[in-house]
Amino acid sequence: MIGKEQTERALEIFDEQKIDFLFLTNLQAKDPFFYYFTGASGFESSVAIIGKEPIIYTPGFEMERASKETWIKDIREFSTKNSLDNIKKIVGDKIVGVNGKFLPLRIQGKLQKAGIKTKDVSEALLDLRQYKTKDELDLIGKAVKATKQIIEKIDTSLPGNEIRAELLRQYAIEDMDEFYRAIVAYDADSAVPHYRGVSKPGKHCLLVDTGGSYEGYGADITRTFLLNPNKELQEIYRTVEEAQKVAIDLIEPGVRISDISKAANDIIEKAGYRMVHSLGHGIGLEVHERPNIMTGSGKVLEENMVFTIEPAIYVKEKYGVRIEDNILVTKKGCKIL
Amino acid sequence: MIGKEQTERALEIFDEQKIDFLFLTNLQAKDPFFYYFTGASGFESSVAIIGKEPIIYTPGFEMERASKETWIKDIREFSTKNSLDNIKKIVGDKIVGVNGKFLPLRIQGKLQKAGIKTKDVSEALLDLRQYKTKDELDLIGKAVKATKQIIEKIDTSLPGNEIRAELLRQYAIEDMDEFYRAIVAYDADSAVPHYRGVSKPGKHCLLVDTGGSYEGYGADITRTFLLNPNKELQEIYRTVEEAQKVAIDLIEPGVRISDISKAANDIIEKAGYRMVHSLGHGIGLEVHERPNIMTGSGKVLEENMVFTIEPAIYVKEKYGVRIEDNILVTKKGCKIL
Repeated sequence: MIGKEQTERALEIFDEQKIDFLFLTNLQAKDPFFYYFTGASGFESSVAIIGKEPIIYTPGFEMERASKETWIKDIREFSTKNSLDNIKKIVGDKIVGVNGKFLPLRIQGKLQKAGIKTKDVSEALLDLRQYKTKDELDLIGKAVKATKQIIEKIDTSLPGNEIRAELLRQYAIEDMDEFYRAIVAYDADSAVPHYRGVSKPGKHCLLVDTGGSYEGYGADITRTFLLNPNKELQEIYRTVEEAQKVAIDLIEPGVRISDISKAANDIIEKAGYRMVHSLGHGIGLEVHERPNIMTGSGKVLEENMVFTIEPAIYVKEKYGVRIEDNILVTKKGCKIL
Repeated sequence: MIGKEQTERALEIFDEQKIDFLFLTNLQAKDPFFYYFTGASGFESSVAIIGKEPIIYTPGFEMERASKETWIKDIREFSTKNSLDNIKKIVGDKIVGVNGKFLPLRIQGKLQKAGIKTKDVSEALLDLRQYKTKDELDLIGKAVKATKQIIEKIDTSLPGNEIRAELLRQYAIEDMDEFYRAIVAYDADSAVPHYRGVSKPGKHCLLVDTGGSYEGYGADITRTFLLNPNKELQEIYRTVEEAQKVAIDLIEPGVRISDISKAANDIIEKAGYRMVHSLGHGIGLEVHERPNIMTGSGKVLEENMVFTIEPAIYVKEKYGVRIEDNILVTKKGCKIL
């Protein structure tokens, strides 16, 4: 078991310092904005100052690799002592934007110590990522196409771990990465929206939710394969399919996101079920980006947004059906990627 | 290309706010301490307050999953409005430890606003993770054993992407995860310590650096397979092998880390080469943990530390040899996992 012994040890150590509590967060991964602005994904500690003349500071042994990955010309060796002082000289008294949803407390402390004035601009940054560039659309399009081809070829009689093994093998052959841990779930397991485990072959259905990524930009596709479905399951499948079609048919610039969500939910509710999660979410560098496609949204769709439409019905302990595709908002309508 | 257009767009948007710069960091992934103390790995936003009566706050739809994963009994629904106020009532005026190397600026702001007094205890937390519990050792041991079995069976004539595909397939079949992106590099590519790309089959050697993980705890193994080695490469291989043996022979509680590093470096330097990276690093929940096995270290080894010993020689544009094993410090000596 992980956690209990670790907690006891920590409380013992911190007792001497008169610290009785630890506060922890379970938030997002590596700041995606570093790659978003620099194009460099080196895994060792690096910082960047983005302005009219951007600079990357990275450890000596990563400089060669960074220079191959980034469009930024000015790459300097990182030094805890000098790099922030150097940035302070460059920015002077101007305000520096930071991603407050990611920037660790300790780094903020170091920026303050170096006299650098910061402002949390994370909301604006997240909004910016909604509008995909042509290069981003190319990568997402490629990822979706490859993912759909791979998912169509799976053997729906194998145990879950073997199906995931084959997905991973195919992604690696295409030099893609797995965008998020694939969900492979038969029968009752498919009724758990985020099932994780080794699902045994079933008799009703197989739900596969997976996506590969190219250069960080990924796909998020779900297919539910009917094996020997009973009448109830067939009806559910048709309802989910219809909900997805109705939602996609509405997508074009200017349409209210809440209207799209409501249209899909209405169909599912008329059939006597209820959607337990939102209808969809933006994708790109992360598997959950803006816009969130939900009934409570106050936003409208705009060109070059890319998101999932994934209506679903789950019948506890029996089966679940989810159909998920990735949609690009175009100038006058939309495109199923 | 990723980055340039994104930067231009951001600068345009922030210009109105008179923000001319963005400061970004490329630091670590999801805070490993959340899992370390709770045993729950749910990917959606959760927070935890660890004390004598720990509490997890998680979104409603993750509560069932969290209750299956964690040893903590008190799981409450997360609400941005109420959860922090609730924590404030529990902790009162006591100081709450936080992981300043991870805690995002925005969350720290919210803690302050709720009147919670915090202290950055990240150094002590990282030290704590050095000493593995029995359960952690079991998971790492299992991961190392499986990784070694998988790596021994690879076909050393295939292109790099196909070898990685097979590694991933095997990890998935064993219900493991890939602990870090595998490095598969032939000939000149093996001379790049962190090679990333699709390496074509070679004639001299194949370097494979990979590890699978069980429940988050992983292995980090490198093997260099000699194909048709010339005399120089054979000599290099023997030197690296000897450097590793000499280092491992010295490992026991109380030994200075710098002495181990020096012993291996001496052998490599006598042969006319130079180590470009440190001799090893701790492993566990992350692929780089404490202790760092380097000549500059002022620390001594202690029981239950687990780390890599990975001497290497790289000859630019020709080939590289790295041999990496995972070592556990035992009561009286050490064990190669």
